[in-house]
Formats: sequence, structure tokens, C-alpha cells
Amino acid sequence: MRLQNRKPTELRAVFLGPSFVKFAEGSCFVKFGDTHVICSATIEEKVPPFLRNTGSGWVTAEYGMLPRSSHERIDREAVRGKQTGRTQEIQRLIGRTLRAVVDLKAMGERQIKIDCDVLQADGGTRTASITGAYVALHQALQKLVDAKKIAKLPLIDQIAAVSCGVVEGQAMLDLNYKEDSNAQVDANFVMTGSGKLVEVQAAAEKHPFSEEEFQSMLALARVGTQELITLQKQALKID
Amino acid sequence: MRLQNRKPTELRAVFLGPSFVKFAEGSCFVKFGDTHVICSATIEEKVPPFLRNTGSGWVTAEYGMLPRSSHERIDREAVRGKQTGRTQEIQRLIGRTLRAVVDLKAMGERQIKIDCDVLQADGGTRTASITGAYVALHQALQKLVDAKKIAKLPLIDQIAAVSCGVVEGQAMLDLNYKEDSNAQVDANFVMTGSGKLVEVQAAAEKHPFSEEEFQSMLALARVGTQELITLQKQALKID
Amino acid sequence: MRLQNRKPTELRAVFLGPSFVKFAEGSCFVKFGDTHVICSATIEEKVPPFLRNTGSGWVTAEYGMLPRSSHERIDREAVRGKQTGRTQEIQRLIGRTLRAVVDLKAMGERQIKIDCDVLQADGGTRTASITGAYVALHQALQKLVDAKKIAKLPLIDQIAAVSCGVVEGQAMLDLNYKEDSNAQVDANFVMTGSGKLVEVQAAAEKHPFSEEEFQSMLALARVGTQELITLQKQALKID
Amino acid sequence: MRLQNRKPTELRAVFLGPSFVKFAEGSCFVKFGDTHVICSATIEEKVPPFLRNTGSGWVTAEYGMLPRSSHERIDREAVRGKQTGRTQEIQRLIGRTLRAVVDLKAMGERQIKIDCDVLQADGGTRTASITGAYVALHQALQKLVDAKKIAKLPLIDQIAAVSCGVVEGQAMLDLNYKEDSNAQVDANFVMTGSGKLVEVQAAAEKHPFSEEEFQSMLALARVGTQELITLQKQALKID
Amino acid sequence: MRLQNRKPTELRAVFLGPSFVKFAEGSCFVKFGDTHVICSATIEEKVPPFLRNTGSGWVTAEYGMLPRSSHERIDREAVRGKQTGRTQEIQRLIGRTLRAVVDLKAMGERQIKIDCDVLQADGGTRTASITGAYVALHQALQKLVDAKKIAKLPLIDQIAAVSCGVVEGQAMLDLNYKEDSNAQVDANFVMTGSGKLVEVQAAAEKHPFSEEEFQSMLALARVGTQELITLQKQALKID
Amino acid sequence: MRLQNRKPTELRAVFLGPSFVKFAEGSCFVKFGDTHVICSATIEEKVPPFLRNTGSGWVTAEYGMLPRSSHERIDREAVRGKQTGRTQEIQRLIGRTLRAVVDLKAMGERQIKIDCDVLQADGGTRTASITGAYVALHQALQKLVDAKKIAKLPLIDQIAAVSCGVVEGQAMLDLNYKEDSNAQVDANFVMTGSGKLVEVQAAAEKHPFSEEEFQSMLALARVGTQELITLQKQALKID
Repeated sequence: MRLQNRKPTELRAVFLGPSFVKFAEGSCFVKFGDTHVICSATIEEKVPPFLRNTGSGWVTAEYGMLPRSSHERIDREAVRGKQTGRTQEIQRLIGRTLRAVVDLKAMGERQIKIDCDVLQADGGTRTASITGAYVALHQALQKLVDAKKIAKLPLIDQIAAVSCGVVEGQAMLDLNYKEDSNAQVDANFVMTGSGKLVEVQAAAEKHPFSEEEFQSMLALARVGTQELITLQKQALKID
Repeated sequence: MRLQNRKPTELRAVFLGPSFVKFAEGSCFVKFGDTHVICSATIEEKVPPFLRNTGSGWVTAEYGMLPRSSHERIDREAVRGKQTGRTQEIQRLIGRTLRAVVDLKAMGERQIKIDCDVLQADGGTRTASITGAYVALHQALQKLVDAKKIAKLPLIDQIAAVSCGVVEGQAMLDLNYKEDSNAQVDANFVMTGSGKLVEVQAAAEKHPFSEEEFQSMLALARVGTQELITLQKQALKID
Repeated sequence: MRLQNRKPTELRAVFLGPSFVKFAEGSCFVKFGDTHVICSATIEEKVPPFLRNTGSGWVTAEYGMLPRSSHERIDREAVRGKQTGRTQEIQRLIGRTLRAVVDLKAMGERQIKIDCDVLQADGGTRTASITGAYVALHQALQKLVDAKKIAKLPLIDQIAAVSCGVVEGQAMLDLNYKEDSNAQVDANFVMTGSGKLVEVQAAAEKHPFSEEEFQSMLALARVGTQELITLQKQALKID
Repeated sequence: MRLQNRKPTELRAVFLGPSFVKFAEGSCFVKFGDTHVICSATIEEKVPPFLRNTGSGWVTAEYGMLPRSSHERIDREAVRGKQTGRTQEIQRLIGRTLRAVVDLKAMGERQIKIDCDVLQADGGTRTASITGAYVALHQALQKLVDAKKIAKLPLIDQIAAVSCGVVEGQAMLDLNYKEDSNAQVDANFVMTGSGKLVEVQAAAEKHPFSEEEFQSMLALARVGTQELITLQKQALKID
Repeated sequence: MRLQNRKPTELRAVFLGPSFVKFAEGSCFVKFGDTHVICSATIEEKVPPFLRNTGSGWVTAEYGMLPRSSHERIDREAVRGKQTGRTQEIQRLIGRTLRAVVDLKAMGERQIKIDCDVLQADGGTRTASITGAYVALHQALQKLVDAKKIAKLPLIDQIAAVSCGVVEGQAMLDLNYKEDSNAQVDANFVMTGSGKLVEVQAAAEKHPFSEEEFQSMLALARVGTQELITLQKQALKID
Repeated sequence: MRLQNRKPTELRAVFLGPSFVKFAEGSCFVKFGDTHVICSATIEEKVPPFLRNTGSGWVTAEYGMLPRSSHERIDREAVRGKQTGRTQEIQRLIGRTLRAVVDLKAMGERQIKIDCDVLQADGGTRTASITGAYVALHQALQKLVDAKKIAKLPLIDQIAAVSCGVVEGQAMLDLNYKEDSNAQVDANFVMTGSGKLVEVQAAAEKHPFSEEEFQSMLALARVGTQELITLQKQALKID
């Protein structure tokens, strides 16, 4: 039995608070239970060197954890002098999955940078980040439309992300830190509003897993991401 | 005339929310107007090398700004690979001023690390940080007392900090970003509950300043820090 | 039609040359077509700090590309002063997947470091690395058995890895660089000799993909990894 | 009683040797007792990016200590790979205070870099550096006048700096290393030839200090800086 | 008596395999006994900043060792975050000596980068690198001639390099790792096809050496480099 | 004809000022004409890890140039975040050559660190550094003898260094910056008091050189180093 009588198929309490950061072009404060992340979007009127004079835009992301976001304090990356491999993996994932639903050509030659900063970490920070990052990105793009810099939202689809795991033989949705520590498999799924896949990552923790376990997680993820998609729409007040 | 009819001698709206961070031994969410900072305190049962086997404790601080805390996005220090000189100056200031009111011997051979992370920056982030850091530190030390690791709070005095400036010839308290940009002098004062000085920093912006201007700022700072001291007591529920 | 009349379900010419590096405790020169990687294993009689005095061993990996391994010269990471996010992602993957089939307790308190260095890169360097790394690891562990440091091979299963992609709507096995550049989906699968999954990674390139496309790639990967498992057995001269 | 019968209000023996470095556009070898610093000024005909095409000039400073300048050898920062927070704080202070007396617009779009390198450190290296840096800067600006690149010296005022402290309840001027180690308060004052303030920094060492103590130090500093201003004039052979 | 009955005046078995790296403009796999190095040449149509608009070209080199190239695994420089002093010394040597025989003006404003990566290290990696680097450079320059970008090979002379040492009083040619460890003097000579000197480096190991010892090594080097010059010609199929 | 009527076989005016740095265990201010270097020696009662518990001592060196030591200001290495390859090459050379005349076993398990900091650079900074470093080292070792930590000076021989070059076909001793810039060959020789060789480095600048040219430089170096050996003896007041 999960904390607070949560069923294996249930998400934690999710909160999506748009326009949280006063100075950003788009932002969202996202909570998946005790996991709290600030996502903010910055519009820059220039692109990375490899895109200059191509007419194409870019979306990228950076991720960080406040040192005392987690149960044990973690070293500040600015003091260590570099980002960990885990941090880089996560920020690459966030940027890559957002780009999969943006029409970069239609964005024009500008860049949107998404910053995902974790205030509290209780499992699933990368999936909460992606889910909140979409909201911040949507707001920033809407600002470009409102300013008549682009004709319409250059979004092909909507994305949300959720983690799954297998704990004591049972597939479960949206694991918190404690469940995650006991999981035999750990997976993250990024899906679109129309039900397509953007990213699938599943990794054995200690022991290889069966295809059946994988398929159970995939089915749970489908349900979870659709709920998140609905919550994003409510937060953004779209259809 | 200042924004929102604020008088030169008035602080911005100040909020001190203790116990903000779930996993930290002490914490405070501090707002000085639109400047918002999370301060959290971590107790570590070991000290830096130079204090090993001396019986003495230590208090230190780290400071950071979220990239989109300010009007223009600033580079993430973890990506740049190092902290700026300004960041180091501020975190050294926070640690040094807190240590001035802690009886390090009475703390025992342990360290308290204070993390000050700026969510929004609208002027005065270092003074807001010190003011909130004191609350977080107080909570963490109380936790040591409650756990009977130390007999009583090893605090000699209470501290708070405020900035002052001279804008168009007028000394003013607690400048926001816009006022700060126009100031001819920029000063920060850290004072104790009993009215003593812990740190005085005043710097000419473009032009040298007179001793009279300095003394006016010092007088304003005295008033401002005493108000903050009172607010800290309310937040900590100590008389 | 693929280069050299390869069918979508066919691996490139695979070569596994064990004992390639004179001074290493285990090694393998692996070729997947024009992708060439040297994998070598080093036994160290000490473990990382978090495992000291736990009796448990560790397996880790590092990955690098020679500057002129690819079509365009890439910057030497030692000169840039840090490993790219991609490099870190790959070396974390190699280490994690190898550990999934090693009985770390049975290894004793020692570490095996696997170095995967790419001499030529024509797509699939991470899957070639994992496939060769298993051979190098197996040799190094056998050396420990031969030296009577451990009683038997602490291996739970065997692993191999292969990439898949969807190119122009067609799922394909083991993509070379050119095919990979045109793929709409890019996936890597690490599987065991007994057919279990160790890691699944699938990422949309430009467009989200359907579950059907994913399932086709998974089926191809199953076939490909079993062929590689057989080739590893031949190289190692086991059953 | 101080070393060599020095009174609390007395400076150490001060030496200002201009034109010390053969290749520099301006330079000064400054001694405050056993504290010895080489200050040199370099003219560069380009400005930092934020000033390009503004017509304004810039003055900046760098500071360093030779490894064996102090009683115990200190690590070479070039080997450690970064400057300490203390170093950055000092060099920011030197640059900021010099800029307060330079008419940057009148300098034209060029930069003067001041290097302050400590050969021997016996307390007060930052105040000796500022005092010598002014001389080097003055020489470099004179060279621009002589070369008819600017019409007249773009200097608004002259600056010098001195440290003060409170040792066993007694305010004292220009502390050496040993006195500084015993001080309860440690302060640095940068003042102009016309008696204005450029920078005030006072920090409690172990215990908060009273306003009276602060005011005593300020009074001493006024006397000390005026003496240094006179010595600078003699060194530069001006009025 | 040396390993495999080698005489003091004899080179180890030398192998020079040109065109080893599929994607490079020039390359050579060089073996001096158990020392194995891959040298590859990359043509870049731009020069370092100090040569822009001078019409002159440049040749530079980078050097690295695979972590398990040597008897004991060495740390990966990309992980350490910097190249060692030894690495930098060697790559500066390779670049400098190659430039001594290239007519940089005649090359046109382009750069050739030589990468020397050591797969196995058994003494003499720098001399093997230079000898193989010449072959890779020659191939890359020939490619420029073939593409009619330059009229003829801008090579003034041919170079090869060999190490010498004094072991137990006896001067010896081309030391392997074990001999090198026992040498009292360690020297490297780079000479041209026409018998001139390009670089001489001789260093005492533990004890100063006599001029006679030095002259004996110089004589051996002359013989050894001429043999290598001949082998290079065979590999390149020139005269 | 050389500057100040210097003959090809003549050293520049050499000055060796021992005990220059107040706090160091040994030091020397060395001038070779306009090249000025401070050498200081620090005794540390511990050795690098690879020598612990071997009973053997160590001598090492660090080298740096003040930013405005040369005609054009050079970047401060502490700001760049790393030492250049040239700096590392020079400091490795200084340490290596000093060790060649020290009986490390007789020194006891302690380390002497030599810092060579260039105040002015006009050619030959590495040879001036070695020549002065010997004096500083000798003083520090004498201090150990005086303190009865070792029985006698653990010095096998004395060393000095000088540069030579070939300018317009003429071999010359001790080149200044301008001569060095025009040299066709550039060489550095480190020799002992008894006339043995410690290090020979000769490098072609633009064109390979003949053995005759090399032998002429070697002969000049022999004369030059013997003069320096005599000057060191006078400075140290030995025999």
C-alpha cells in the first residue's frame, strides 16, 4: 500500500501554477507531491552558432537542484565547478523532448531557454520538469504571438512526462523518492496529447526486467500523461 | 517620490516565512518587496580541516541566483564552471556576519551551512539573505538544543541587514533595483539586536561621497535593522 | 535499400577481437561495420568511497572518441577541459548496464574500470561499446577466478546492445551514421542472453512516434542482440 | 606599545617608487613597512564588450600574491586553477575605487589595467595596492596626455587607502599582520585628496563593535589617507 | 644484452601503416616494437587568430594516451579536466618539429592538425609519434596538391625522431620502457632526411652526464633517424 | 654588433642577490640584464604521495610571469584558470635539473619548493631562473644543516644555466629578447660546476640547423655556465 492510500495507477497530487516568476516570459511552478520545481522560459533573439542564418529557431533547457532540495544536502554545482553527468542528462532530455513538438522553422531565428530549478526533490524531478517546462514554453510562445512576432503558436502537439517503476513485482505510476529507491526498474515516459511517444527510458536497477514488466509500465504511463495533459490545459486555459 | 508612496525611511513590505523547505534543519523564505530568497540551514557533524580537533564549530554560507531571477536572464554559474566574484563576495559576507553572533566553541565541533538562493532579484538580495539566514540558522541551532546535542542556543546576539543609498542627494532605506541603479552611493549595514555594528560597506557609485551622506545612511540603517529584528522575533516566536 | 544490400533486419559485419590490448586485464577490439572501438578492462583493488568496507565491488566505465574518429574532427575533450554531456551519458549507460548482470557482492571489494575508446565512429558507438565491454569484463573477471581471488565468475547473465531506428517509416536494425541522420526515431536496446531487458532508450528525432513503431524496433532488437550474444560466446570460447 | 615605538595614529614607513617596471606605461613599487607591492598600469586601445561604441573608457585591476610573499607559503592560484574569493574581492575593490575618481568619458574608448602583485605581505596589502595603483594610473594617463591622445588628465580627484583596526580596545592606524591578527574590528578606508569617501569597509572579527569604535577608526583614516595623498604627490612630482 | 638480442645500435621492429584512419585526410599507424600510435591529419581551411590575413598556414599537434595504453592504467585527461604538463610538452614538440620542415607560406592560409593517440606505450611514444606524424602530414599535403589547392608539396625536408639513452654506461638506441626506466640519461633527437638537426633534448636522470656520453647518443641517433627516413619513404612510396 | 658592445661570447650583466625575500627559507633576486626573477625556496616537512615512507626527499619548482613583466601585457594565468604549456615546461625543467644535483635520500623525507617569479622578461627567463633557484635552494638546505636536521649539505654538484642561439649564422651566448626573436636556433644548456651536462635543449626556429652550429653553442655554453658558477659561489660566499 502506497503513502496516503495512493493506488499503483494514481498520480501524486499535481499542481501547475503558471506565471510564477515575475520577470520571465513564461513560467510554471510545478508540484508532483513533495517534488517542487520552478520552470521559467526566456526568449532570446539569437540562436546558437550552428543555426545562424538558417531561419530556424531553437529550444534548450538547463536543470539544477538547490543544494538543500533533497533529504541530504548535495554539493552546489557552481562550487564544484561543473554540472554532474546526471544534471546534463536531464537537461538534454528536457530540451530534446520539447523540441520534438515545436515547429522550429515557424518559431523564427530566436531561442527559448527553459530553466528548471528544483526547490524540493522527492522523486520524479525530471518528469515534473518536463511537464512544467511545457507550460512555461507555451506561455513564452504565446507572448511572441501576442507581440505579432510570429503568426501562430509553432506547436505541433503538447507533451507531458511521468515516471513508472516496478516495486516488489508491481508496476506503479509516479514514484516518490522512497518508492524509487526500492524499484527494480525505473522508467520515464514522455508522451504527447495525441498519444504518441516522444521518449522512452527504462533502466534495470540491479536486475534485468521482463518485457511484460516493461509493457505494464508503458500502459500506466499512457494514463498518467493524459491526466497531466488535461491539467496543463486547465493551467493554460486552453480548449 | 518612491514606488507605492514609500517614504525614504521606509522598508519595503517584508515577509519572513520560517520552515519553508521540507527537508532542511532550518529555513526561511524571505521577501523584501519583489526580492525573494530561500534560506536553508544544514547541520553537518564535521568541520573544515582547519578546525578539526579544536572543539570549535563553524558557520558558512553559499549564495546563488536562479538564472531567471532577474530582469535579464543571467548565466547559470554551474554551466560557466565557476562562481562570479560578486557571488563569492556575497557568500563570504553572509557567513562572516553570522559567525560574529555565534559562540562557535559552544556549538561543538559541527558545521552549519546556510544556502541562500535568490528566486527573484529586485535589489537588496544580500541584505534579504542575511536577514533570512539568521532565521534559518536560529531554527537549526534550536534543533540541536531540542536534540540535547547542545545545552542552549549558542547565540550572542541577533543580526539583520539592510541596504541604504543616496539617490539624487537624498539618503534612502532599502533600495529596489531601479533606485539602486540611480544611486550615487550604495551601502549595506549589518547590525545586531543590541544595536552594535557587524559590517559596514559603503561604496561610491561614480562619485566620491561626503561624510554627512554616510552618517545619514548609517542612521537610516539603524532604524531599518531594528524593524527587521522585530520581524525575525515574530517569525521565530521569540520575544 | 541499405548499403551493401543489407536487409532492415540485418546487423552490419561484426568483429569481436578479444585480448587486443597487451597490458590490460581484459580487452576487446569491436567492429560494427566501420564503427571501431577498443574496450579494455582494468582491475583495481579498491572501490569508490561509498562502497568502502561494504564487501561489495563495483564496475564503472569511461568513454571517449579519438578526435579524428568521425567524418569531421571533433575537439579533444582533454583540451576543452571537460567531457561533453553526450560522453557522460554514454559512459554512465555502459557502466550501469554492465552492473545489472554482475553480482557485485560476489566480486569482492574491488573495482573493474572499462575504457571504451572509439577509433572510428560510423553510428552505434554506444551499442558497440557495450557489446565489446562485456567481453573485456568477462576476461578480467576470469583472470580473478584464475588467480583464485574469487571462486567463480560473478556474472548473472550476458549482455549485448544494438541500436534501432525508423527510417522513412521502416524499422531498421543497427543503423550506420548516414541512416541514423535520416532516422525519425532513434533507439538503443540492451538485452541479456536470457532475453530480458536491461535498458531501453527511444527518442523522437523531430517528430513523436507511434507505439507500433516502438514495438517493431523492440522486436528487431531482440533478434539483433541474440546474434551478438552468440558472437560474444564464440569470441570468449564459452559454451 | 607597537613595534618600533609606533603610535596608534602613525603610519608605517611608506615608500612610493614610481616607474619601477621597465615595460609598463605606469608603475609604482609601494612599501607600507614590510608589505611590498608592485603596481603596474597597461594601456589597451580597446574596452570590454559592454562599453564598445559608447565612447567611454574603463579602468580595471587584477591582484595576486607571490606564493612566498607571506609567512607561510600559499598555493599559487595559477596552479589551483582559480582565484580565491579574497583575491577577487580585493581586485574588484581596487578597480572600483580607482574608477570613482576617473572621468571615464574623458579617457576615450580605451582601458587601463592595473596589476597589483604582492612581493611581501605583512598586513594592509589591499590599501598599499590602492595607494600605489593610483600612482601607476596617474603615470599611464599622463602618458596619454603626452602623446596628445587626450587633452588633459581625466582625473576628478586623487585617492589613497589605509586600514584601521581596534586592538585591545584601542583604535589604530595601518595595522601590520600581527596587529591585524589580534584586532577585534578590521576596517579599510579609501578617501580622496579633497577628503571625501570612496569606500568604507568595516567588519567585526569575532565580536560586533560599537558605533564609537567605528567613528574613531574613521577619524584615524582621515589623517592617514591625507599623509598618503601628500606622499603620492611627492612621488609624482605634482603641485 | 637487450631483449630479443637487440644490439645497442638497433631500432626495434618498426611498422608504418599509412591511411589507417578511414575519415582522416592523412594518417599512419606506427609501431616501434610494443609502442603503438595512431597519427591522423586534419585539414582545416582556417588558421589561428595570430595568422589571419597573413597568407601563412600552420601545423599543430595534439597528443594523448588511452588510459590503458600503459602497464598501469593512467587517468583519462578528459576526466581530470586538463592535460598534464608532460602531454603539453610532447604535443608542443611534435607541432614545432613538423613546422621546421614545412614552408608555411606555401601552404596557404589553412591549418593541418595532427592527432597522435597512443594505443600502447612501451617507451618512445614521442619519437614514434613524430615519425608517424610526418607520414600523416605528407599524405594530407599531397591531398591538397591533388585537389590543386597548392601547386606542390610545401615540404623543405623530411623528419624522423628517435630516442637514445645511456644504460649502465652504454649508449643505446630506441629504448623500450624497461630500458628507459634504468637509463642514466634520456635523450630525444629529431633529424631531417638531409642529416640536419631539428630538435635535441637530453636530460640527466639522477646524475649529470658527460659530453662524451652525449656525443655517443648523437651519433647513434643519426643512424637511427636515417633508417626511419627510409622506412617513411617506403610507406609513402616516394623515391 | 650586440647591444652595449657585447661580444658573442659575453654574458649580460649578471646580478645575484641572495636572501631577497624576508619570509622564505632561501631566496635570490637574479638579473641577467633586463631579465629579473625572484627565486624563493620553501621547506615543507612532507613529501608528495609517491614518496611517503620511502625516506627520500623531493625538490620541485613553480614558475610564473607577472602580467606586465614583458613588452606586451600577458594574461594572468590565475585568471585564465590554468598554466600555459610553456609555463609547465619551464617549471618541470627547473625542478628536474635541480634534482639532478641533490642527494634526495640524504635530504630526508621533506620537500623544497622553489618559486621562480619573473618581474621583467627580456629573454632567458628559464636560464636565469635555474641559476637563481640554485642559490635559493642552497640557502634553504644550509638552513636545514644549521638547524641540525641534516648532517651536511646534500648537494652532489652545483648547477647554472645559460641560453645560446645562432643569429645570422653566428653562435651567441645569453640572448636578450630581441636577439632571441631573430635567432635561427634557440638552445638552453644546464651544466654543473664540474663541467658535466644536466640538460641540453636545442630547437630549430624555422629552419633545421647543422651539427657544427650545435657544437659551437655547446662550447659557448660551457664558458658561460662556468662564469655563472663563479658568481653563485661569490653570492653564497662559498669557497
